[in-house]
Amino acid sequence: MSRCILFSGGPLSDCDRVRFEVEPGDFVIACDAGCKTAAQFDVRPDLAVGDFDSLDGPVPEGIPVHKVPAEKDDTDTMLGLRIGLERGFREFLLVGGFGGRLDHTVANLQALGWLCRQGASGQIVSNRNRAWAVRCGTLTLPQLDGWHLSVFAWDGPCHGVTFEGLQYPLRDAKMIPSLPVGVSNEFIAESARITVVDGTLLVIASEE
Amino acid sequence: MSRCILFSGGPLSDCDRVRFEVEPGDFVIACDAGCKTAAQFDVRPDLAVGDFDSLDGPVPEGIPVHKVPAEKDDTDTMLGLRIGLERGFREFLLVGGFGGRLDHTVANLQALGWLCRQGASGQIVSNRNRAWAVRCGTLTLPQLDGWHLSVFAWDGPCHGVTFEGLQYPLRDAKMIPSLPVGVSNEFIAESARITVVDGTLLVIASEE
Repeated sequence: MSRCILFSGGPLSDCDRVRFEVEPGDFVIACDAGCKTAAQFDVRPDLAVGDFDSLDGPVPEGIPVHKVPAEKDDTDTMLGLRIGLERGFREFLLVGGFGGRLDHTVANLQALGWLCRQGASGQIVSNRNRAWAVRCGTLTLPQLDGWHLSVFAWDGPCHGVTFEGLQYPLRDAKMIPSLPVGVSNEFIAESARITVVDGTLLVIASEE
Repeated sequence: MSRCILFSGGPLSDCDRVRFEVEPGDFVIACDAGCKTAAQFDVRPDLAVGDFDSLDGPVPEGIPVHKVPAEKDDTDTMLGLRIGLERGFREFLLVGGFGGRLDHTVANLQALGWLCRQGASGQIVSNRNRAWAVRCGTLTLPQLDGWHLSVFAWDGPCHGVTFEGLQYPLRDAKMIPSLPVGVSNEFIAESARITVVDGTLLVIASEE
């Protein structure tokens, strides 16, 4: 299934060890200063979006530009996600969404929850942290050796939360966003399964 | 009013420029590797708490220790907050809660929402990011020159959200946690007022 790959404007030093392939059919969006991140990965974006308040210099020649006013409700990353959805993509990979301003990091994590509500799914990847959201369903993750896995109720209470393949299992539990009790779990099998019957979970893998 | 000051185990490089005073009556808790952070600030904790899985070396001599098993639901920071609440404190300052593992950062931000629900309030401070939560009330912040201010619905829908003293005002609006529309506001007055009639808001100030 083709993906929409977004490059955000987070620091390059936070995502320069991320490995991924751009496959034929994938659509690549550079969000504002994400143009620099894309160049770092030697990837030519299909579109550059944003108010371009944080990109020093012009968008590289030949890349279509979707420019918006600086005074907008959406972040540049949200704008990129909306465009990807409009173009029919339901799977998103966001490179470089962490490590810069904390407010942008939190906005990117909330955007993962928003994607779930649009019937889509997303992943944010950086060198030492990765994040996913899952809504009323199951997220299956391959074992990440030496990484911790933490789970948070994300946009409201979550019911029927079950962890499988993790050191501290959970079965049909309730989690709420104002009590972080799912931090620092560990993989103990080839894959982990995180299920939520009702609600949205944020799942973060962090390297020690 | 006396405060409970907690040192978390985030990287020293992320909070070494934070300035604050420990006043008589304040109670200082070092959370696990936060012992090192406290030492960096030349502050002697009244209590060290945690499983001490991340502190290299012993707790400095003479500091009372509250040691818990590594297999626990609470993070070391949540444990410190619970102890502070039990001792009667309602105002908390968390130094060094950002910049380490992203899952710990998110857990610390959710803990701010938890404090509000206990009738208390907290602030997390680092060099370039600060965070507060406000529940069914008003948060007043002095102008931070050159900092952005971002507001998020945090543990569910928020009703009656009003921003005053900010470039992009809001009046009696609804915000939801899965749509980050309050990112990158700007101070335009000596102070900003963030009000929420019903729900919990997370407020993050980030330096550009």
